[in-house]
Amino acid sequence: MRVASSGRLVREVGEFALIDQITRLVGSVASSRLRIGIGDDAAAWRPRPGHDVVITTDVLIERVHFRLDWTDWGSLGHKALAVNLSDLAAMGARPRLAFVDLGLRGSERDQEVLDLYRSARKLGQRFGLVIAGGDTTRAPNGVVIAVTVVGDVPKDGRPLLTRSAARPGDLIGVTGPLGLAAAGLRVLERGLKTLDGSPAMQEAYHRPQPRVREGLLLRRCGVRAAMDLSDGLLGDLPKICERSGVSAIVDLFRLPIPNAIKWGFSDWRDLALRGGDDYELLFTAPPHVFERVCRAFRRAGLRPPFRIGQIVEAGTEGPQVKLRNVLGKLEVVEPGGYTHFKV
Amino acid sequence: MRVASSGRLVREVGEFALIDQITRLVGSVASSRLRIGIGDDAAAWRPRPGHDVVITTDVLIERVHFRLDWTDWGSLGHKALAVNLSDLAAMGARPRLAFVDLGLRGSERDQEVLDLYRSARKLGQRFGLVIAGGDTTRAPNGVVIAVTVVGDVPKDGRPLLTRSAARPGDLIGVTGPLGLAAAGLRVLERGLKTLDGSPAMQEAYHRPQPRVREGLLLRRCGVRAAMDLSDGLLGDLPKICERSGVSAIVDLFRLPIPNAIKWGFSDWRDLALRGGDDYELLFTAPPHVFERVCRAFRRAGLRPPFRIGQIVEAGTEGPQVKLRNVLGKLEVVEPGGYTHFKV
Repeated sequence: MRVASSGRLVREVGEFALIDQITRLVGSVASSRLRIGIGDDAAAWRPRPGHDVVITTDVLIERVHFRLDWTDWGSLGHKALAVNLSDLAAMGARPRLAFVDLGLRGSERDQEVLDLYRSARKLGQRFGLVIAGGDTTRAPNGVVIAVTVVGDVPKDGRPLLTRSAARPGDLIGVTGPLGLAAAGLRVLERGLKTLDGSPAMQEAYHRPQPRVREGLLLRRCGVRAAMDLSDGLLGDLPKICERSGVSAIVDLFRLPIPNAIKWGFSDWRDLALRGGDDYELLFTAPPHVFERVCRAFRRAGLRPPFRIGQIVEAGTEGPQVKLRNVLGKLEVVEPGGYTHFKV
Repeated sequence: MRVASSGRLVREVGEFALIDQITRLVGSVASSRLRIGIGDDAAAWRPRPGHDVVITTDVLIERVHFRLDWTDWGSLGHKALAVNLSDLAAMGARPRLAFVDLGLRGSERDQEVLDLYRSARKLGQRFGLVIAGGDTTRAPNGVVIAVTVVGDVPKDGRPLLTRSAARPGDLIGVTGPLGLAAAGLRVLERGLKTLDGSPAMQEAYHRPQPRVREGLLLRRCGVRAAMDLSDGLLGDLPKICERSGVSAIVDLFRLPIPNAIKWGFSDWRDLALRGGDDYELLFTAPPHVFERVCRAFRRAGLRPPFRIGQIVEAGTEGPQVKLRNVLGKLEVVEPGGYTHFKV
């Protein structure tokens, strides 16, 4: 049944180019009810007028996304759900249902598997989410966790947050510090448990807090453009620029980088700018909307977002991300964060 | 971070007992909007009055669910979507969106991956389904395919098909022949390509036809109880009996077993009764509804269902499945089809 292989190797093509090819292939089917398809944090479907359903899905593979000697099963369940909730948060949607499928070796303990579901349930409950399905199957070569989260959008007339809605003049905001999770991974890789601040770093890596309330508030305040930070600021901000046809200037001195990272790692800038797994929300908004967001976050008891730069018109060279140092000097950066397949 | 392991090994507990434990754990969260949760073919969610959304998800693991030396990527894409469409068909729902996530080694060809999406798209188009998302990630230890399908229910006042609605007096029907896919797998395992009928067997294994139109018609005709055959008749019918609190009598001579299977395999009975992957619909209905179904199928140009037995009251020993031979002799059978983990 094996057909002759043609085409290039996936690892040479790279993750993003492959997704582009897939998008071109399946995106050619039009559907008036599919409002947002491949290419944003989640898909948006309008089954009935005035009702948007938002769906996102993610697969975690052992030894690629997690290592069982670095994490416990409870953290694994938390994180697997959290990364999907983060995608929903990036759309400004309200989580409703989750489906957690597990591929297991068989040598796991049933209590470990229940720990995974238990902590996923606990995280979900904070946002009114119910685990509606859970399949298990055999996966002899390593644990596989596939999570799907379904949400919807409160009826308030505000559109979903997308990656394509950034406009020149917008300020760029981020809901929390950068680089903590990447630092946490470094701590685990190098066994730096005595490093100052390492418990918080590991916690950020193992149990990211999805910014669901923040995402809902952003949308209600009139923000239009957002995504969640999973591939690092310089991995993700270019996606907003590309999809919106704009450029971005990031003020280096405004970046919320914890001192523990600056003091603990000589390459702290890379950790903060290119490290993945932060799961904070990145958004852009006109100054008056940004102000409104800060007030709303304070009223809700949430830490107001950090303002880290601004959106400008793209030049003739197309969408770019530039870093600005304290002296005002601009430096164009190569986009890039964590990518699968690419060397 | 590793916590002390407690509990029993998953492979000793077995797939179904583990799912029971998970269901007890996560099922304790009540939600008036979640109408059907873990335990049926798909979950049903009612986001707005009068609107049911049906969601199902499945993970396929290389060397557990498929072997790349036995299948081509197009068939893989077809089957990965088909098994999920079959779950939706078993609820009587209409497919709308699919999400196809891929874990890849990196040594695949991009054209192979596109073949997978292409044939999934082609199958989906037959039912008006759009592929709305597709993520790729690295999976060095083998290909992983996770598919989620979202559907909804035409507004016709008829309830969704469930496993718990079988009633004594119902006839048992099945939409197509039994054992073809299991025979196809046997052909592949043993290299029996010259066997009579082997192309059809392999086709049944590689490219099962989800009974989406049949499921919609069953529901419209007033059928209440159905599921899809993925673990073989004796793996699946006991689930309907258990959930409905009834017993079933299956007439051996009525089973639609292709002659090619009877003539080609001495254990044809096991292939037909306990072989998995058929993806035909199994349903029960009172005789007058069954008649209506046969007429509706004929009108729609579909093969009418085979009548294979009837539902009776469960005795004091609880729900059972009994086989009846041509002489009327009854034999109680051990439930069982394909199961993960269990030896």
